Amino acid sequence: MPDQPSQKSPAKAPPVLRADARENRERILRAAREAYALHGIDVPMATIARRAGVGVATLYRRFPTRAFLVTEAFAEQLAHCVSALDEGLADPDPWRGFCSAIERVCLMQASERGFTQAFLGQFPDHAGYAEERARAEEGLARLVRRAQEAGQLRRDFTVGDATLVMLANSGAAAGAGPDGPAASRRLVAYLLQSFRAPGAAPLPPPVRLNLERILER
Amino acid sequence: MPDQPSQKSPAKAPPVLRADARENRERILRAAREAYALHGIDVPMATIARRAGVGVATLYRRFPTRAFLVTEAFAEQLAHCVSALDEGLADPDPWRGFCSAIERVCLMQASERGFTQAFLGQFPDHAGYAEERARAEEGLARLVRRAQEAGQLRRDFTVGDATLVMLANSGAAAGAGPDGPAASRRLVAYLLQSFRAPGAAPLPPPVRLNLERILER
Repeated sequence: MPDQPSQKSPAKAPPVLRADARENRERILRAAREAYALHGIDVPMATIARRAGVGVATLYRRFPTRAFLVTEAFAEQLAHCVSALDEGLADPDPWRGFCSAIERVCLMQASERGFTQAFLGQFPDHAGYAEERARAEEGLARLVRRAQEAGQLRRDFTVGDATLVMLANSGAAAGAGPDGPAASRRLVAYLLQSFRAPGAAPLPPPVRLNLERILER
Repeated sequence: MPDQPSQKSPAKAPPVLRADARENRERILRAAREAYALHGIDVPMATIARRAGVGVATLYRRFPTRAFLVTEAFAEQLAHCVSALDEGLADPDPWRGFCSAIERVCLMQASERGFTQAFLGQFPDHAGYAEERARAEEGLARLVRRAQEAGQLRRDFTVGDATLVMLANSGAAAGAGPDGPAASRRLVAYLLQSFRAPGAAPLPPPVRLNLERILER
């Protein structure tokens, strides 16, 4: 794409440069998210640089490691996840809070396809994700407990089932391509109807799935 | 692994050679399935040859194209899918037939992870899969209609929802690793409980998912 006509003037060089740098950064992060959605988070840094229209050296100057770039690219999505859980817990109706948290996290997963892999991925050189994951796991456990204590969520639902929903949702969204968000909404609605107490029929034994164990593979 | 001590004798050379060839073929097909499960069906032929412990030339002599190797590797799984649908239709109880077909296809998907991608993949030089896919789609549609006409399957369930189940199941099984089959059983049980009529709450609109459309992407 051709550049916009330059508005630079020598007198204002430093502030304009900072705006350029910001714009560059945003362009790189957007290109990274697009590349992750298409090819997964193992996509080479050079591919991202090409998509963003910057040199590889520039990319590495701003984002020295792959892990750093991944976490920066999805910072907003991670914050969105955490606030979906917090707001679910703040809802006075435990069932509504549980459902809205699951729905929001799943819809975000479906709209930003690289995020699930980034969130579940292993980044030994970037501790921030591990903390956020632990916080998310704890928030989910509280949402589940609260809805079960209110008699609104079936008793045999486990926290591992919430991870199961996310994995299933991720598969549905990825396979449905541009229909990902619609496929996610439909799948999640089916599952939530099954999770609702009472009247639930017996299930096969739960799977001990948690974010930590998936991460170890 | 070391070879077994050779039992060959010059007088029996031709039959022993045929047995060797059969064994070679089985070893290649097994290696291919393992490689597809780990890396997807785009894995290089050389990787499969290495896993099977044969030369690349031998691999190409037996399986001249990637599409041919993929379809041969999953021939048994495809036949299993088709018979799961046929047996579901033969069950005098439409709901039980519907459930058992879905359960069997999903469990097979979960146990043989490369299969879903192979089945949904595009092989212009191998027409067999397209026919089988069309047959599977038709069998599914009949299973759905029959269970709905019996009042056992919710009215708003669509054939696209069956594809949605397969995509979700594939995501759950892939993410759960060695727990894939258990994760699949649990997910499918939740979904089937939600599909059962009556008492179903309203859903978001269905997604027009079918094997053909996914294939076009």
